[in-house]
Amino acid sequence: MSKGITSKNENYSKWYTDVIKKAELADYGPVKGTMVIRPYGYQIWEKLKNELDQAFKDSGHTNAYFPLFIPKSFFTKESEHVDGFAKECAIVTHSRLKHNDDKTDLIPDESSKLEEEVIVRPTSETVIWSMYRKWINSYRDLPILINQWANVVRWEMRTRLFLRTSEFLWQEGHTAHATEEEAQEESLKILNIYESIVKNILAIPVIKGTKTESEKFAGAVNTYTIEMMMGDKKALQAGTSHYLGQNFAKAFDVKFQDVDNKEKYVYATSWGVSTRLIGALIMVHGDDKGLRLPPNIAPIQIAIVPIFKSEEDLQKIKDFLEPIFNQLNKDNIRYYLDDRMKMSPGFKFNEWEMKGVPLRIEIGLRDINDNAITIVRRDTSEKTIVDRQDSLKQFSDILHDIQNTLFNQALKFQNENTVNVDNYSDFKLHIEKGAFISTYWDGDPQTEQKIKSETNATIRCIVDDNNLQNQKCIFSSRPAKYKVIFAKAY
Amino acid sequence: MSKGITSKNENYSKWYTDVIKKAELADYGPVKGTMVIRPYGYQIWEKLKNELDQAFKDSGHTNAYFPLFIPKSFFTKESEHVDGFAKECAIVTHSRLKHNDDKTDLIPDESSKLEEEVIVRPTSETVIWSMYRKWINSYRDLPILINQWANVVRWEMRTRLFLRTSEFLWQEGHTAHATEEEAQEESLKILNIYESIVKNILAIPVIKGTKTESEKFAGAVNTYTIEMMMGDKKALQAGTSHYLGQNFAKAFDVKFQDVDNKEKYVYATSWGVSTRLIGALIMVHGDDKGLRLPPNIAPIQIAIVPIFKSEEDLQKIKDFLEPIFNQLNKDNIRYYLDDRMKMSPGFKFNEWEMKGVPLRIEIGLRDINDNAITIVRRDTSEKTIVDRQDSLKQFSDILHDIQNTLFNQALKFQNENTVNVDNYSDFKLHIEKGAFISTYWDGDPQTEQKIKSETNATIRCIVDDNNLQNQKCIFSSRPAKYKVIFAKAY
Repeated sequence: MSKGITSKNENYSKWYTDVIKKAELADYGPVKGTMVIRPYGYQIWEKLKNELDQAFKDSGHTNAYFPLFIPKSFFTKESEHVDGFAKECAIVTHSRLKHNDDKTDLIPDESSKLEEEVIVRPTSETVIWSMYRKWINSYRDLPILINQWANVVRWEMRTRLFLRTSEFLWQEGHTAHATEEEAQEESLKILNIYESIVKNILAIPVIKGTKTESEKFAGAVNTYTIEMMMGDKKALQAGTSHYLGQNFAKAFDVKFQDVDNKEKYVYATSWGVSTRLIGALIMVHGDDKGLRLPPNIAPIQIAIVPIFKSEEDLQKIKDFLEPIFNQLNKDNIRYYLDDRMKMSPGFKFNEWEMKGVPLRIEIGLRDINDNAITIVRRDTSEKTIVDRQDSLKQFSDILHDIQNTLFNQALKFQNENTVNVDNYSDFKLHIEKGAFISTYWDGDPQTEQKIKSETNATIRCIVDDNNLQNQKCIFSSRPAKYKVIFAKAY
Repeated sequence: MSKGITSKNENYSKWYTDVIKKAELADYGPVKGTMVIRPYGYQIWEKLKNELDQAFKDSGHTNAYFPLFIPKSFFTKESEHVDGFAKECAIVTHSRLKHNDDKTDLIPDESSKLEEEVIVRPTSETVIWSMYRKWINSYRDLPILINQWANVVRWEMRTRLFLRTSEFLWQEGHTAHATEEEAQEESLKILNIYESIVKNILAIPVIKGTKTESEKFAGAVNTYTIEMMMGDKKALQAGTSHYLGQNFAKAFDVKFQDVDNKEKYVYATSWGVSTRLIGALIMVHGDDKGLRLPPNIAPIQIAIVPIFKSEEDLQKIKDFLEPIFNQLNKDNIRYYLDDRMKMSPGFKFNEWEMKGVPLRIEIGLRDINDNAITIVRRDTSEKTIVDRQDSLKQFSDILHDIQNTLFNQALKFQNENTVNVDNYSDFKLHIEKGAFISTYWDGDPQTEQKIKSETNATIRCIVDDNNLQNQKCIFSSRPAKYKVIFAKAY
């Protein structure tokens, strides 16, 4: 266990916060529930953002930017949306501060009270569809495939860095289509993009499925989701893609003239992932020494720690490392030579372990004589001494292997802790211990609600199943309507 | 003149708005003073952002993200800052909406009234220095070189797309240093980065200088600025870099233990440019046909318009263009083949002209027989017919030449409209006509104020001059203290 990091087994929640603090990923801001994303955490976000952005662009999407402020009245236009999002939000009521009478404080100037309150966006469907109304007239204007990178605000009482904060960063896609089929296809296409990037870049396996009525997005016809298993066997909803049907088009009166000259309402999707994925990254891969970053997302893939006492020694080591630097540059590997003075090698080893750097190279004067370097893998803690010349061709392969190993570890963990259950007492037992439970449900929201209140488990998603005929609901024993995954969730 | 675009001479302000609307760069949002940046406008911003981001990273800076919300009390900590920024701002007072009694409307829930109001950031010095306080202990923690890409809000009454909106996008750098020299150097280094990107990417010449006391950033010791001349001869402040001294360190009590073991206050800088630069781009280069984009910032550098009546013809043209596509790909040129059906070539020509695409290729069936293509430059409207084979090597050069031509046109315009003036009646004459006036000032804020109230001209910046001794103030005739540039400004 690293200094200052609580063990996972002792207190998972404290372990999580310790890792974030020690790896300098994030910090709480001065206003309750707000988050500061520190440079190291932001570098991870930037890499993820670039991967997503490229995938969106490759599939025909383009970025735009819509305002932070939404008129209060917009939230009343879509009846489900209002209950989902208008509740806990930041309400702007005044536009000017003035000094109080004795000039000891600033107070809102009553003469600047707004005629209509303004809401800081919790999500942008309403403001975007108010603009789409102006931009869409004919089938020639469709589809619109827009994404935006933005901050959103949901006033949260119980906050947790990256997982639940009043303000967070995300991308939100908002598309408009002429047909239901096309919109449905879009929402599933995006779900696959999310799955693929989460798997290939973050090395996290996901379960894809559909949300139940009670868990879906407020205003959606269908919400598709990717769910992940965290290290404490709880679920995290990591990304959602919504087929919105014509709900927002009707709320904002967005019609188009179709090829057949008829006026029709537009079909919509929306979809998003957020900085929450960094929380997942920590919880899926982290261990008692700190972060473990998959190479494809790591800001630094290899930390090189020279062991030296003088500038002269350092120079000798640097000269010796020259062919390695050349190879790393050639292979586009992100490395960092940690030649900070006055810090012990042990301190540095510890720091790079906490920060989850996938591979560490240790090199001292004796190694030069042996023409060797020491390589330490963060995923397995495996330490090997390699001939310098032999090492050159290995770095890419090792990083590739670390990426796979982390994914396979996470997949194994998820599989081992996902159980098929066919009676309610087993259900409660496993939920208590922590697990994903694969079982059957009668489709009744009341059943769902009762299970939730008795066990705290929710239906994470409905999954495909070809063999529903003879199955019974885990709770009611009535004929099953869906195969579902239950779990406690963040 | 293009359809729907008012002529510049007729009404410059309307021309500006028409270009933005017709080129689909931006639109007003539903809350007064907010802006929607449409995809084409956002692509320009993305390119500019990438250039700046790379330059910041190359000079050792890293990105982070600080919260949107700032406690009201923070604004009272730095005495000048409060007057500059706490006045016109968005004030969040409640965190929950509820239905009114008859359920016809949503109203702020009084039980959710915040204990302390929260301000939507107008700029982030205060929140960032409250965090630096936690992060900085020793000289080893310095320098901190952080930038953030963010939205900020200043409640504006008179708004104008890109130039002045309630919310805008920008980058804000906030650095912390152990010495005054280092901080000063940083603020000037950034000014040079701004100048170089604005010149090389946006093809806009700038005048660099220092702001006067009355025009400087609220809380700065010195504000350095780049000023540009717009097409109507008014000035635009396009970017500023502030040397903040120890003002914010003292306000937020940020001290560090120096090498000599003494506790000292930290030195600071902050600096920013915003989406305002897109406004400059429009006003410096645009003409009565619409935008004219320098190739280095253009999302599409070459628009290729095939002239065809059938799919067959189109295919013939595409085949003929094959070697050209290959060459453009090889040269990393951003091109777009406009093969939209049902739109006339004339309509397309007009659209790409409005959108400012630097180069247009026109190609019809007859051209195939002649083995030729037609090239039209947006900057000069010059139209040439070129042999297909000869054209291949020319595209890069022509784009390069357009970039230079646009810069030189803007520089010529700026030079021609910058006058040296040594008496106040000439001063008034030229200010009335529209000009940058290079002249001398006694350094007295009252003089500055009087000139402003009589002419609406402000000191855009103090510029270097080695020959102050015998100069007199344009207004007071007292000995000159500074050489300055006066102009009316946006």
